[in-house]
Amino acid sequence: MGPGKAELLTFISELGSISAAAKRMQMSYRRAWELVDVMNSCFDQPLVLSNVGGSHGGGAQLTEFGSQILANYHTILLKSQAASANELAFIAEHLKQSD
Amino acid sequence: MGPGKAELLTFISELGSISAAAKRMQMSYRRAWELVDVMNSCFDQPLVLSNVGGSHGGGAQLTEFGSQILANYHTILLKSQAASANELAFIAEHLKQSD
Repeated sequence: MGPGKAELLTFISELGSISAAAKRMQMSYRRAWELVDVMNSCFDQPLVLSNVGGSHGGGAQLTEFGSQILANYHTILLKSQAASANELAFIAEHLKQSD
Repeated sequence: MGPGKAELLTFISELGSISAAAKRMQMSYRRAWELVDVMNSCFDQPLVLSNVGGSHGGGAQLTEFGSQILANYHTILLKSQAASANELAFIAEHLKQSD
């Protein structure tokens, strides 16, 4: 799991469709499917269920497990940022501004 | 900063040489130099100082600031892992074993 996969799960959850999520992320449908396949095959149960059918596919949704993993991912980011606030601030202070 | 750059800094610090660090990481000398350049130019002061000279270059070492950034990076990882232990355990439980 990383930012790309988490964002894809978020959009699938919001839009109910892998193709719509891919379009929103300016990602090819094929690439989005690959990422979903990787996630579904890395875990012991699927994160995304898709229904075949229709000209734009039959929709997709996160499983309860997929929602748990996505929530977990965001919790890890938040807790990590909170726990490392001083160290992250030190780095940010010393990064050159890009603008 | 990510695992690759952190590892490179660690080996430069231990081996006193960018070329030796690159060799240890099975990375090209050119690539190692690029990563050092990126790090040195992203921050408001250099992380690595190198001395030109000799057939294998004149050695390199971390600045005090470079050591601070590297220590910071490891602290962030440790604190993040500790803060997210429950969430990371949940994910690990549900990842398929690769062996």
